[in-house]
Amino acid sequence: MLRRAIDLFNEQGYDGTSMGDLARELGFSKSAIYHHVPSKTHLLSQALDEALDGLTEVLDEASREVPGATAYDRLRRAVRLSVAVLVDHQPAVTLLLRVRGNSEVEVAALRRRRDLDARFAALVREAVEEGSLRSDVPPALVSRLLFGMVNSLVEWHRPGGAVDAGQLSDAITTIAFDGLALGRGSSGHQS
Amino acid sequence: MLRRAIDLFNEQGYDGTSMGDLARELGFSKSAIYHHVPSKTHLLSQALDEALDGLTEVLDEASREVPGATAYDRLRRAVRLSVAVLVDHQPAVTLLLRVRGNSEVEVAALRRRRDLDARFAALVREAVEEGSLRSDVPPALVSRLLFGMVNSLVEWHRPGGAVDAGQLSDAITTIAFDGLALGRGSSGHQS
Repeated sequence: MLRRAIDLFNEQGYDGTSMGDLARELGFSKSAIYHHVPSKTHLLSQALDEALDGLTEVLDEASREVPGATAYDRLRRAVRLSVAVLVDHQPAVTLLLRVRGNSEVEVAALRRRRDLDARFAALVREAVEEGSLRSDVPPALVSRLLFGMVNSLVEWHRPGGAVDAGQLSDAITTIAFDGLALGRGSSGHQS
Repeated sequence: MLRRAIDLFNEQGYDGTSMGDLARELGFSKSAIYHHVPSKTHLLSQALDEALDGLTEVLDEASREVPGATAYDRLRRAVRLSVAVLVDHQPAVTLLLRVRGNSEVEVAALRRRRDLDARFAALVREAVEEGSLRSDVPPALVSRLLFGMVNSLVEWHRPGGAVDAGQLSDAITTIAFDGLALGRGSSGHQS
């Protein structure tokens, strides 16, 4: 039920979707829909939590101290796992990226997004301080641009299409890190 | 007049903006607006052309054969100039990136956008064939991801803010190309 509601929100916009539209889509009568769905806001909240919980787990997982792992390893892992979350939860993440703060639920989601951005930027800073990441691009800008590249895939990635999640992760981490990692850029280079 | 119409379209959506809204915004009465603006579509068309003409000039300029310039130089220049167009025409480009093909004007704009994507992907392929760009990421994917990173700036770049256009161009070309350029990655690297 949540799947179909998310698709509908993405197709015609959350604000442009009425409970009547939802009822039709879900096969309920207009009077029966409220027995199944407490409110449109409730569905939006569940959808945004799906995306935000996935990305929070990524940062929890990537931030965990692992013996022998560097800040660079943690950052690279965070990017790789983020791509996987975007691909696995593409409709929910698409909805999240369109949120503009038009309601309490949206404002709360934007707050969680900002927290995630800050945690990600902290990972970038740690890798810079460790000396494994170039320091000539400000960490906040690095994290915006990396997520710009990662998030863009919701615009054009088609599940089951020519490019799978593994190729996407490889492409993004390769482009991003062979540019960012000091002294690591040689792996993909031919002389 | 076009400026304020574009801002209004970006704030409340093109479909969500009426001629009455435009009249209020532009300081005309509802009956006078049609003497000044033939139609809402006309303004949309002008706005999308502004963005598309800018990007077309970039590709014309970058594609020009210059003695001594390689395909890699042309591609790097195309990325750098595209960032400048996005910054200079941010409201018009923002509108362009939201176009979904809901009308004849939008379909025509999407067609022009696809042509530009194809020309850009051709520049990527030439650089791969020349041997100056890594060949392990498919050119079509490279061009989508690069433009994902470039286009993301319409979401967060604030004119007159902490980051200026030059820093943005530098950051994007550095991240992108020190990862993409075979044998060129060493400039930003410390051992």
